[in-house]
Amino acid sequence: MIKEMSGQHSLGNSRLDGQYAAAGFGGRVGWGERPALLVIDLARAWTDPNDQMGSDLSAVTTAVCQLLDVFRSKDLPRYFTTMAYDPSLRDLSRVARAKTPHLKQMVRGSAAVQLIPELRRQADEALIEKPGPSAFWGTNLATLLNSDRVDTLVVTGCSTSGCIRGTAESGFNRGLHVILPAEAIGDRSPSAHEASLFDMNNRYGDVLPLKTVLDELDRY
Amino acid sequence: MIKEMSGQHSLGNSRLDGQYAAAGFGGRVGWGERPALLVIDLARAWTDPNDQMGSDLSAVTTAVCQLLDVFRSKDLPRYFTTMAYDPSLRDLSRVARAKTPHLKQMVRGSAAVQLIPELRRQADEALIEKPGPSAFWGTNLATLLNSDRVDTLVVTGCSTSGCIRGTAESGFNRGLHVILPAEAIGDRSPSAHEASLFDMNNRYGDVLPLKTVLDELDRY
Amino acid sequence: MIKEMSGQHSLGNSRLDGQYAAAGFGGRVGWGERPALLVIDLARAWTDPNDQMGSDLSAVTTAVCQLLDVFRSKDLPRYFTTMAYDPSLRDLSRVARAKTPHLKQMVRGSAAVQLIPELRRQADEALIEKPGPSAFWGTNLATLLNSDRVDTLVVTGCSTSGCIRGTAESGFNRGLHVILPAEAIGDRSPSAHEASLFDMNNRYGDVLPLKTVLDELDRY
Amino acid sequence: MIKEMSGQHSLGNSRLDGQYAAAGFGGRVGWGERPALLVIDLARAWTDPNDQMGSDLSAVTTAVCQLLDVFRSKDLPRYFTTMAYDPSLRDLSRVARAKTPHLKQMVRGSAAVQLIPELRRQADEALIEKPGPSAFWGTNLATLLNSDRVDTLVVTGCSTSGCIRGTAESGFNRGLHVILPAEAIGDRSPSAHEASLFDMNNRYGDVLPLKTVLDELDRY
Repeated sequence: MIKEMSGQHSLGNSRLDGQYAAAGFGGRVGWGERPALLVIDLARAWTDPNDQMGSDLSAVTTAVCQLLDVFRSKDLPRYFTTMAYDPSLRDLSRVARAKTPHLKQMVRGSAAVQLIPELRRQADEALIEKPGPSAFWGTNLATLLNSDRVDTLVVTGCSTSGCIRGTAESGFNRGLHVILPAEAIGDRSPSAHEASLFDMNNRYGDVLPLKTVLDELDRY
Repeated sequence: MIKEMSGQHSLGNSRLDGQYAAAGFGGRVGWGERPALLVIDLARAWTDPNDQMGSDLSAVTTAVCQLLDVFRSKDLPRYFTTMAYDPSLRDLSRVARAKTPHLKQMVRGSAAVQLIPELRRQADEALIEKPGPSAFWGTNLATLLNSDRVDTLVVTGCSTSGCIRGTAESGFNRGLHVILPAEAIGDRSPSAHEASLFDMNNRYGDVLPLKTVLDELDRY
Repeated sequence: MIKEMSGQHSLGNSRLDGQYAAAGFGGRVGWGERPALLVIDLARAWTDPNDQMGSDLSAVTTAVCQLLDVFRSKDLPRYFTTMAYDPSLRDLSRVARAKTPHLKQMVRGSAAVQLIPELRRQADEALIEKPGPSAFWGTNLATLLNSDRVDTLVVTGCSTSGCIRGTAESGFNRGLHVILPAEAIGDRSPSAHEASLFDMNNRYGDVLPLKTVLDELDRY
Repeated sequence: MIKEMSGQHSLGNSRLDGQYAAAGFGGRVGWGERPALLVIDLARAWTDPNDQMGSDLSAVTTAVCQLLDVFRSKDLPRYFTTMAYDPSLRDLSRVARAKTPHLKQMVRGSAAVQLIPELRRQADEALIEKPGPSAFWGTNLATLLNSDRVDTLVVTGCSTSGCIRGTAESGFNRGLHVILPAEAIGDRSPSAHEASLFDMNNRYGDVLPLKTVLDELDRY
């Protein structure tokens, strides 16, 4: 059993890392043969601090744009996600409306769900409208990854404790190498961010500094 | 944006709860028409503190057994899960072996994956062998829930930050009412437990005291 | 082994029906507690005989409209599907482009994928854009069915040997009662239509005359 | 609309093939970078003509064994499936029991679901117990394919109009190259076999003579 001193789950807590390692967690998945970049939900609703559910993700956006530059220059696959429901909201479940009422603002074609212009999404970069937290649930992302021969998914965007974590678990479930560049992932809550990075690093994928990710990409 | 004072995500932090509520999180999903009890991974590997990944879950087990008594007396559906791979481990992905090497001990039929006897599983209670954290991934649980007309899933067992959380998100994705009785859920790490209860309560299901859950069940 | 006289799989071939029944196929799933109507791909691309992949489905449309009237008058759930890809076609797999090149015409928002006006889709009736043959693959239809407490799916539209059959198998997989009203289902090929009705009736759902379906709906 | 002369859907009907091609069906998916062999349900229940649902599949078995030899000699991935339910049958849906009552014989560990000895399954060849027709539904086959970097699935075994067809559609949905060697696929009904080969060749994968498949495998 893991005994914690501080109650804090953050990366770089070497005592806790050691305890998880002893319990058989936190190994390295490493990189596969063909990486792709997945940019989760960098749309106005999440990135505008004046929006109900928004927060300042400008540093995350900068890091994502650095990664986009590299993936574009190497012509490795890029995918973007946003959330979108029919204006009738008929495709939003009762429990989703009740638990997370902000989802009722995520109407297809509205300003709230448009990708932010800093990403400069290009016409040949897939945009996936997802109905839930994980980018795999209710979408054909798995199909695109197979079609593009992707085995390594670099997951970026927001929010760490919601859509990022759900997507990381989904990628792990499907046998993909999940890579999480720490600076390119954000959350409105700093402690939820830290706790999910810790859990994901122990369970689903490798949390790495952005610089390490950029260095690794050199070889593709 | 949510501003935290303490860095701690725990239920009952009213300031943080208010901030999440303002951001459109943490509504109540409530109860549907027909609840079922799902008992996740209460097998020896997780419950024996001498096992590599085990911890003391005796209080969780007691709470689960209280719920089992009620669901059995009302003849409401019960499902158990464990993990299990072929002795060849051929059905365990490379990344799962690398990230969570303890999974290599989860061999079908071995002592490690047997349900603990305290649960007294009965022959007409489904046992689902799952290959990943969520009880829905790679299993036919969704089929059984439809077949049994279940719309409300009371999720119990372990671990809060792994299989419980993955299952709660999956249930939410599928439009189910997810109910999480706090005392009937456990984790080897107290702070990971608290952080995931907080996130789940804001995003996927209702975290409730065991007593409230038992009281609600009275009406079925 | 089933010995066939004619080589034809069509409903009403009593000799063949008897052989399948003896082999443990073709039982009745019957009706559950709450039916919904699913209308598959009645959009211009499939219904205009001048379109590359279109055929005359006017009799099917008439039957579907009769069912729509009943489901609307009883306020039972209705869902429509069409297919739709991004104008970049980036979300269409390589193998799908190669095997069924007509899919490249299924661009979101184009005339080809608009529902036909005869259906008079109402604002509170869900429209599901699907990327593959089954209405469940890559969509959140399963979520809506749970949210609406549906356990019985009346599957209509086109094409019998493609999207209808894929959807019927998916519904069966998920434990749903699949009902197939024969006159409300069509295919560009009469023999493919007959062969798939035969297989579906033996394996996945109950193929019934439209009149029987309308009579059964009386009790809801 | 396709005008049929004979009512027969069989490969080599050049008039009908031409009509489907004109409608945008029946292209070639071709071969990808890494093929795997999937052997569906060659267990006693399906292969013993004295069994309720069995038929003589000895020629199919011979063809599958030829393919197994090649995949083994090249150390390309092989996967086997069978069906299996808990002895309680608690994991078999109500509709499945009603529609296809023979499934109640598919008890885990029973003689009926054991792979036939001719296949000489080796310890490092994955055996997947599936609860439905498609080998992807309710299993972790998709995970194994990703883990093994497979993009091309050679689907063999039985039955053409049931599990083979469901698996072929699932593979197509996921963007995989589906290859169907005609002699290595069988069905208790010759006409259902022909009709499903025709549909699959037009919609989901390439139906090829066994010899062509063996020749293609030379280059891996």
